[in-house]
Amino acid sequence: MADKKNLLLLFDHPTEPVFMDKGGNKTVFEMPDSYMTENYGGLCKSVQKRISADRDPKVFVREISIPDLSYPESLKRNEPFSLFVKSHRQKAGHLIEVFLTLKSVDHLQSVAVYARDRVHPVLFNYALSVALLHRKDTQGLDLPSFWQTFPDRFVDSAVMQKLREESYVVQNIAQRRPIVIPTKYTASDLEPEHRLWYFREDMGVNLHHWHWHLIYPIEITPGADRSIVDKDRRGELFYYMHQQVIARYNAERFSNHLGRVKPFNNLTDTIAEGYFPKMDSLVASRAFPPRFDNTRLSDVNRPVDQLRVGINDMNLWSSRILEAIHQGFVINRNEEKIYLDDVKGIDILGNMIEATVLSPNQTMYGDIHNMGHILIAYSHDPTNRHLEFPGVMGDSSTAMRDPIFYKWHAYIDDIFQEHKRILPAYRADELSYQDMEVLSIKVESRGLQNRLTTFFKESDVDLSRGMDFQPRGNVMVRLTHLQHHPFKYTFVVNNTSGARRYGYARIFMAPKVDENGYEMLFADQRLMMIELDKFLILVPPGRQTFTRDSTSSSVTIPFERTFRDLSNSSETPNTPESQENFFCGCGWPNHMLVPKGRAEGMSFDLFIMVSNYDNDRVDQNGPDGCSTAPSYCGLRDRLYPDRKSMGYPFDRLPRTNVITLDHFLTSNMKTAEITITHDSTIEKLPSLANRNRN
Amino acid sequence: MADKKNLLLLFDHPTEPVFMDKGGNKTVFEMPDSYMTENYGGLCKSVQKRISADRDPKVFVREISIPDLSYPESLKRNEPFSLFVKSHRQKAGHLIEVFLTLKSVDHLQSVAVYARDRVHPVLFNYALSVALLHRKDTQGLDLPSFWQTFPDRFVDSAVMQKLREESYVVQNIAQRRPIVIPTKYTASDLEPEHRLWYFREDMGVNLHHWHWHLIYPIEITPGADRSIVDKDRRGELFYYMHQQVIARYNAERFSNHLGRVKPFNNLTDTIAEGYFPKMDSLVASRAFPPRFDNTRLSDVNRPVDQLRVGINDMNLWSSRILEAIHQGFVINRNEEKIYLDDVKGIDILGNMIEATVLSPNQTMYGDIHNMGHILIAYSHDPTNRHLEFPGVMGDSSTAMRDPIFYKWHAYIDDIFQEHKRILPAYRADELSYQDMEVLSIKVESRGLQNRLTTFFKESDVDLSRGMDFQPRGNVMVRLTHLQHHPFKYTFVVNNTSGARRYGYARIFMAPKVDENGYEMLFADQRLMMIELDKFLILVPPGRQTFTRDSTSSSVTIPFERTFRDLSNSSETPNTPESQENFFCGCGWPNHMLVPKGRAEGMSFDLFIMVSNYDNDRVDQNGPDGCSTAPSYCGLRDRLYPDRKSMGYPFDRLPRTNVITLDHFLTSNMKTAEITITHDSTIEKLPSLANRNRN
Repeated sequence: MADKKNLLLLFDHPTEPVFMDKGGNKTVFEMPDSYMTENYGGLCKSVQKRISADRDPKVFVREISIPDLSYPESLKRNEPFSLFVKSHRQKAGHLIEVFLTLKSVDHLQSVAVYARDRVHPVLFNYALSVALLHRKDTQGLDLPSFWQTFPDRFVDSAVMQKLREESYVVQNIAQRRPIVIPTKYTASDLEPEHRLWYFREDMGVNLHHWHWHLIYPIEITPGADRSIVDKDRRGELFYYMHQQVIARYNAERFSNHLGRVKPFNNLTDTIAEGYFPKMDSLVASRAFPPRFDNTRLSDVNRPVDQLRVGINDMNLWSSRILEAIHQGFVINRNEEKIYLDDVKGIDILGNMIEATVLSPNQTMYGDIHNMGHILIAYSHDPTNRHLEFPGVMGDSSTAMRDPIFYKWHAYIDDIFQEHKRILPAYRADELSYQDMEVLSIKVESRGLQNRLTTFFKESDVDLSRGMDFQPRGNVMVRLTHLQHHPFKYTFVVNNTSGARRYGYARIFMAPKVDENGYEMLFADQRLMMIELDKFLILVPPGRQTFTRDSTSSSVTIPFERTFRDLSNSSETPNTPESQENFFCGCGWPNHMLVPKGRAEGMSFDLFIMVSNYDNDRVDQNGPDGCSTAPSYCGLRDRLYPDRKSMGYPFDRLPRTNVITLDHFLTSNMKTAEITITHDSTIEKLPSLANRNRN
Repeated sequence: MADKKNLLLLFDHPTEPVFMDKGGNKTVFEMPDSYMTENYGGLCKSVQKRISADRDPKVFVREISIPDLSYPESLKRNEPFSLFVKSHRQKAGHLIEVFLTLKSVDHLQSVAVYARDRVHPVLFNYALSVALLHRKDTQGLDLPSFWQTFPDRFVDSAVMQKLREESYVVQNIAQRRPIVIPTKYTASDLEPEHRLWYFREDMGVNLHHWHWHLIYPIEITPGADRSIVDKDRRGELFYYMHQQVIARYNAERFSNHLGRVKPFNNLTDTIAEGYFPKMDSLVASRAFPPRFDNTRLSDVNRPVDQLRVGINDMNLWSSRILEAIHQGFVINRNEEKIYLDDVKGIDILGNMIEATVLSPNQTMYGDIHNMGHILIAYSHDPTNRHLEFPGVMGDSSTAMRDPIFYKWHAYIDDIFQEHKRILPAYRADELSYQDMEVLSIKVESRGLQNRLTTFFKESDVDLSRGMDFQPRGNVMVRLTHLQHHPFKYTFVVNNTSGARRYGYARIFMAPKVDENGYEMLFADQRLMMIELDKFLILVPPGRQTFTRDSTSSSVTIPFERTFRDLSNSSETPNTPESQENFFCGCGWPNHMLVPKGRAEGMSFDLFIMVSNYDNDRVDQNGPDGCSTAPSYCGLRDRLYPDRKSMGYPFDRLPRTNVITLDHFLTSNMKTAEITITHDSTIEKLPSLANRNRN
């Protein structure tokens, strides 16, 4: 019987033929002749003989009758594949359904090997990933990160060429040097938006975004089991994850003396911010096209992708969605009213706006989020006149690099906030936790109180799995990313109830003053509140001091998970929890937990609320699930672990007398002013490999 | 003593370190440790041991004291290098001067080996090529074509990736297949300009343009010997070669039912035609940036390249140049008038407009041609805000791919024509050749009279010399290009002088009707006259029939020279005439000699004039020089072999009574109507390598 671990080898070297060696130990798949593509015909065996001596491991692939794959195969392998394009999602959905319904790992291996050189490499990666995550018999696998398989979507194209040089010239791996990615290569200081390079172009940030969309597919084959899409509160998560991205981005903008991001809410406006990604897609062998400064959108009509969307369509959809919000209900396909109440309303809106198969009426409410990405991604060639590929906005693994992503999602968020704005404010008694008082909150880092420090740091990652058609062995890139010294929250709770009580500690942070230097009003500040952590505490009667490490955040995945374990990166380690970890692999990167701050220090309001866990708890059976980063990503196969609305208590307008954060506080809340200082020295890695040993 | 042939190895694999194996037989350069760059330190010897067994040839590089190269080294190796940028030309000029003045081939080899990994790879190629062409002791070398060294500038980026796959997977060279370049990959049929893909993206056409600029450098180091720039009638050649390109392009446009190219004569207009080259520069590891439809130029200010030019500057320069033309003189730096007469005027203007060091006053007349390329090439990022590289218009090896090249040069040509327009018309008696009459002219091809046929044809070329960091051995691309069946001119001359007389036969062709279907007026048609051939004939008394093969054209280089000899492409063959041939390597590709025509046939006026060689001859000593394609390229180290103005007799307005071509004819001229028919079947090459032999 096939070993499920071998399936992971199919992720390696995604554009090389499937018969080439995989993994660090030169494993080859021994496959039936009938599985070979026409392109290589009878070459397979002689090539395998050359690359893999007989002592190297072999995986025997059973010959079975292959289901019809002509629909997913109809997307050409060197065309762009985008989850924002419905016909692409449908093709991927077809392959996912095939993979999910095969009766054994053995059969899955056969079909996957057969399909690998026939379907689009990214579609294959996506479909196989989704299938491995959702099949019962493929649990416990540690899927490689998307950047390991497709590094070209994460790093400067110039680096890819240098890696090719390094692996070709220096075949003694011990003598190889990491290739340093320049810190500022996509624009110059003339471009104010470029101050955010470290956020937009961060590998972890982009990986998070890809992962999120991987675990929340939006399409399934008609008639198939809806469970891979129909996950608990997925529409609300779509809203909340992106809302938090905007909140975080705005905090970074303030850190860089830039105003809040302006929503792109008039699609006939020019887009002032150009973006030149300087990346090449290895699958397409085409550069990701740029967008020049001051580009204007045009109606997209690309029959090849069945894409036809105009600015008029977008305006229709947005006015219908806003009408639904203001009327308080949507009309589904059966002409029924579905009310947008304070519990399910945001979730319904999320599914409508993201336009998943759960949308109550796609004909009516359209496909606004995805089509916004598409209109922007094709602004340089809306009618395929120039046979051009989409820009970075056309793919979830690259979209966050572009300044327009934030302007687009600020607009999407404004629509969601329109709904939140008409919900009743939380009353003080709802917010309170009787007999529970938070007396103080502080953070501590390296002996300093309420002072956090950020800095830049170098890290090495190994891209060898995704470097196709070049000599094997680790090839490292050295990237520079934001980091902060780890810190610890300490807060004191006074439980006067006389009994042990459970509390849900909710920690947020937001800038204290706005871009003009004025103290922020609550109505603005609540939208900039960044969730830092949320966790259960058991409070004994009386005063109790709690501490919590920043690395335990419910928002983030650990640094090591983003950058992977370097020590055995060419292999595929498996630990029992690794599958869970992969699900958690969706999570904000811990190194980006707090905003950069400023050299002179920047003030933030740190906020804690301890809410009554009796009102928040979600009762569910089954295993504890992944608990690494549920805040933005939920839990695998389980309900979202908080009955409150996401973003609570900041997701609605405040009660009438609340002007500033202080007014908002009930006794179970507390704030502290903290300062984030940015230290501009870069934490370098030790010297490069010594080239002088011959 | 060093063998000069080894210098050619330095062109191979231009971005690989100099110590890697070169040539088909794995030659390595054994170089002094002090020549190694910091990057590879002591690795050189162990790498050489790995790649080249001791039996492989070695070239010993002598250690000499290296001249200061810091100025050419100041252009970073992964930046763009462009001959249109003055500071780049100056850096190349410095290196050329160093190469030219070294006392022996031995010294040249040492400095070239030292410089190769330190200066920009294209700058190195350019400077070494110029030096080898001009040094007395390096004559007789067959320099590789530019496309062999830098194939990335000539083919689709997707093909480069497929070549990498082919050479990596299929290491048995006999089993490798050529990679087919799709015929229409840069745009769709929605784009009318794309009908000209076969002309603009032709390898031979672009190679010609690069070559021309290679043999006619425009910059030298101040104080150095001016002879490499100051060649006979180089300014006029600049005018004429480009004028002919426009004439040819217009004939192709008519063939494709498009109107004549519109001069880009108002720099504040938008450029309707976008262009997306879909090529990656391997040197920069960056894609050639596109230009979107309807882009507008902005002032360029890029301090890094010392580039600062505004639309106002361009307007100033053009009005001063036109003022000089209309006044009939230019003012040089010594405040002297230099008259633009009918002999030297066009040459002076050429040097002014191309802005060579021969320009009489660059401060006054500027740098209009080069800066037009620059303004267009940087229209996507004029201020380096986005750290972008120039588009294809920024380099002579790629500029002709872009539709704007022709609009720009149509404007440049209009300026030249302004000068030609005020020269006195040729009188009938000047045009005549007493006692010499041309009785008839016809062409014949495959038995048909006055009917030519064009078609598309596949050819294979080997790109292995320029494919860096991948397994060795030929890797072929199969490209599709225009071709025509060879043909023969037959013309009858009647010499009534009673003595043997020399005549200069001048053959031209132009479309018979304009884009609106009206018979062309001479004033328009003369500008569309394509020179097909020019050759000396010796006419005995009486009637004499002459024939001439189309392959002998004085305009073109042979097909084999453009596509190189495939049989030993990994080596560096040397024949006595190869150096001369290289100079002739500058020449219009023979496969593009005649325009495409139309499926239904397209009428052209074929024109012959036999002029009196006594008035045309240029007396000069020395070897006969290269006589392959002097019409657009001149002769190596010799005078232009025709005393008449280039384009004669069509370079001026006609005498007053001439309305159509017929009126223009004197008895030593004759025309014939010929039809060019395009046969749309593609002449395919035989089947691909058989992959099934194991």
